[in-house]
Amino acid sequence: MAEDPNRPVIVLVRPQLGENIGKAARAMLNFSLTELRLVAPRDGWPNPAAGPAASGADEVLAGAKVFDTTAEAVADCQHVYATTVRKRGVTRPVIGPDDAGRLVVTQPGRHAVLFGPERSGLETEDVALARAILTIPINPEFGSLNLAQAVVLVAYEWSRMARELGAASTATLAQPTAEEALPPAPQAELDALIAHFEALLAPRGYFLPETRAEATRRTLRGILTKPGWNHLEVRTLRGVLSALERPPRGEE
Amino acid sequence: MAEDPNRPVIVLVRPQLGENIGKAARAMLNFSLTELRLVAPRDGWPNPAAGPAASGADEVLAGAKVFDTTAEAVADCQHVYATTVRKRGVTRPVIGPDDAGRLVVTQPGRHAVLFGPERSGLETEDVALARAILTIPINPEFGSLNLAQAVVLVAYEWSRMARELGAASTATLAQPTAEEALPPAPQAELDALIAHFEALLAPRGYFLPETRAEATRRTLRGILTKPGWNHLEVRTLRGVLSALERPPRGEE
Repeated sequence: MAEDPNRPVIVLVRPQLGENIGKAARAMLNFSLTELRLVAPRDGWPNPAAGPAASGADEVLAGAKVFDTTAEAVADCQHVYATTVRKRGVTRPVIGPDDAGRLVVTQPGRHAVLFGPERSGLETEDVALARAILTIPINPEFGSLNLAQAVVLVAYEWSRMARELGAASTATLAQPTAEEALPPAPQAELDALIAHFEALLAPRGYFLPETRAEATRRTLRGILTKPGWNHLEVRTLRGVLSALERPPRGEE
Repeated sequence: MAEDPNRPVIVLVRPQLGENIGKAARAMLNFSLTELRLVAPRDGWPNPAAGPAASGADEVLAGAKVFDTTAEAVADCQHVYATTVRKRGVTRPVIGPDDAGRLVVTQPGRHAVLFGPERSGLETEDVALARAILTIPINPEFGSLNLAQAVVLVAYEWSRMARELGAASTATLAQPTAEEALPPAPQAELDALIAHFEALLAPRGYFLPETRAEATRRTLRGILTKPGWNHLEVRTLRGVLSALERPPRGEE
């Protein structure tokens, strides 16, 4: 799986807190990303604070590789994206997480996404390694994404694009299971439901005055047609109407 | 801004840790969402742990409203989405964060997204209030999104869709007719309709045996929630039920 060229490598450049490395690993594995690289983690590696924060994403931490420099960390990658909110005096195309996800899925070669240290972000020399700048478009008056949230958004968009664009590697991702979508009931069943309503309502004067009867029937039909109820739902409603035909208890 | 109908309301149902409420607020404001509602927060409200975790998103916390029940929290909302990873014995369409973002941007009315408690997620009765289940498609072998990450993904997708569709929906798209444009009735009106049905059905033994009563109520709620009837349609159905309360002519 680590060699799958269509999954991006996540590169944390000079991360400060082990806890945040763990959270990033957890964010990755939620979307089936497993390849983590660390550039000069401040507190060394392994870091005892990472494991608990990973909430079970231990395989990601166990497989993490450590490098001295960003250049070494991405040496085998054809595509490098630098995640940053600020312009860095480096002229590069600026793309969003959706664009990045699409590129990873569609462009052959290895892709790496760089994330900078928690406080300061990527340095100009890190950004200079990238072919594109990945910017998450956030509220300009409140830019405060933390590291794990930035990772989760990038991982999510990769996963979404992999599903949408039909990459074979998505076979393991859960699809939102469309509820066993029963089709709407046949018209005859719907008509019988409407007739049942009308049979109960007519003797109670619901369609009076006579001059309004046709419009009232049309309105009722419209309301009952709108849902597209399936066979089971129509049957349940027939049961509701049958119950309403019975007198309430104590009045029998 | 709080009245802008195209921004979703974020509803945290029985959140446990104040820290997570703060992180959710921070996640929201990164994507310009500001309306936060809390249902029965475990440790009360305000919670001193929330502010530091919000990293400056104080306006979101300051504006948070607290409710005793989920139903009260969404009473003024026409569209309710329940974020959950598991099936809950409630038949609803299952959508992703991208679908939800698209719906919020394009459908008139107020939209609320429910998030459950950190450990246990939403209860069946919370999900029953929703028109759709919002599921973030994650790695089936490692489903471990935390609350703030789920919020950030939903907020991000709203923001992305607002950018992609916002201009089009206000400028380019044909305006629907007044009738078509009526949004679904607020949750409180739908609840009143369901209560009216139940009040008529209970004395007729519809919810017996008692052991099945809860499931039967859920089924009925599901059927009546499906259509997304608007205010006028709900009012008409209330009239239908009132007519059914009257004895048929000749039996008076």
